[in-house]
Amino acid sequence: MTRKLEDIQQKILDFRNARDWAQFHDPKNLAEALSIEAGELLENFLWKTTEQSRNLSTDELKNVSEELADIFIFLTYLSEEFKIDLLREAEKKIAANEAKYPVNKAKGSNKKYTKL
Amino acid sequence: MTRKLEDIQQKILDFRNARDWAQFHDPKNLAEALSIEAGELLENFLWKTTEQSRNLSTDELKNVSEELADIFIFLTYLSEEFKIDLLREAEKKIAANEAKYPVNKAKGSNKKYTKL
Amino acid sequence: MTRKLEDIQQKILDFRNARDWAQFHDPKNLAEALSIEAGELLENFLWKTTEQSRNLSTDELKNVSEELADIFIFLTYLSEEFKIDLLREAEKKIAANEAKYPVNKAKGSNKKYTKL
Amino acid sequence: MTRKLEDIQQKILDFRNARDWAQFHDPKNLAEALSIEAGELLENFLWKTTEQSRNLSTDELKNVSEELADIFIFLTYLSEEFKIDLLREAEKKIAANEAKYPVNKAKGSNKKYTKL
Repeated sequence: MTRKLEDIQQKILDFRNARDWAQFHDPKNLAEALSIEAGELLENFLWKTTEQSRNLSTDELKNVSEELADIFIFLTYLSEEFKIDLLREAEKKIAANEAKYPVNKAKGSNKKYTKL
Repeated sequence: MTRKLEDIQQKILDFRNARDWAQFHDPKNLAEALSIEAGELLENFLWKTTEQSRNLSTDELKNVSEELADIFIFLTYLSEEFKIDLLREAEKKIAANEAKYPVNKAKGSNKKYTKL
Repeated sequence: MTRKLEDIQQKILDFRNARDWAQFHDPKNLAEALSIEAGELLENFLWKTTEQSRNLSTDELKNVSEELADIFIFLTYLSEEFKIDLLREAEKKIAANEAKYPVNKAKGSNKKYTKL
Repeated sequence: MTRKLEDIQQKILDFRNARDWAQFHDPKNLAEALSIEAGELLENFLWKTTEQSRNLSTDELKNVSEELADIFIFLTYLSEEFKIDLLREAEKKIAANEAKYPVNKAKGSNKKYTKL
């Protein structure tokens, strides 16, 4: 079975259209929803050290998977609202980051580009 | 030119590997980064009404595009860390939401499924 | 009965000390906790218009009160960690904001100070 | 000089009233603002380990102080909007947490109360 980005994005939009929910999906509310989901994702790592965060229980991993899905769904709605091509923007951002963080300066360093 | 999800995800991972940054990219920090970016996204809509949020200036739209890209990049790193198939999880989540929000009950309503 | 800021802050610290939890309360985790609580606060207003957000149900109001309390508790722990006098900092911040937003320019406007 | 909670809260409200900003300060926007500030606070600890987060530079400490002040200011506006007594709510929350986390079970443990 082939699962393609465009197919999933279309399913996400179809789900909404069948429920007539575009009226509630203004960008302010969508950005709030995404931010709330990001907090729920983060909750899986709270009170852990950075090392411990790499070893999740099965329950935590299931929850993380669902939160990532929710965030992807709200990314899709926001992209659709503003006619943003998410892949193209990600590609541009990586290109910009390559200029900000040249390998010879940034390799192995966790400093912000303004401090390199 | 074909731009595919897998290609972009690979570029995102290549960018990191060239800089030896996987060592800093534990899930706790990645989830923090995603949450911080979600806050920066939300800032574009602050002090606006929900109606006003649909009409952004060119500068705001550019900033929104970049924040969505950043969020997508951190989604990619988190998915890779836990070997999560983002599209498959999104598809499962939409299927679960279809069960929680049946069209005949949820159509035109912004109530949570527990209140339907 | 007199309820004073210092008394409540001391109760918050006593609660922690009795449980030997200072070891988990490094600032990174405290800032995560505060951010997660801020997301839970925001959830009470999700899918509402700005107008609707002024009219909460009794349940929502109770939840908002608890989230504000949680945020205040984490503010207290963070202030204690860094020996920050929260009231003094708030006073300084208001003074700084008075300079950034002079009444004659900012009155009735929701523009950022860089746009005034 | 005596600096009291009520005095600072009054200054925060006076600042707003002089600028006629209560009209923009609906709870939805205030909760967004608080959440955005919480993200900015968290940014000071990003890419650090939990241990490193206890040792901030002077610049980072100054920034943390300002973010805590901003969060306190938005807590004040939200409390005022809903006529919530922040200290009383914090006191109630600590009492509730004492019941959820009895010392004999919770001492030295970072488990959630549902797992104790």
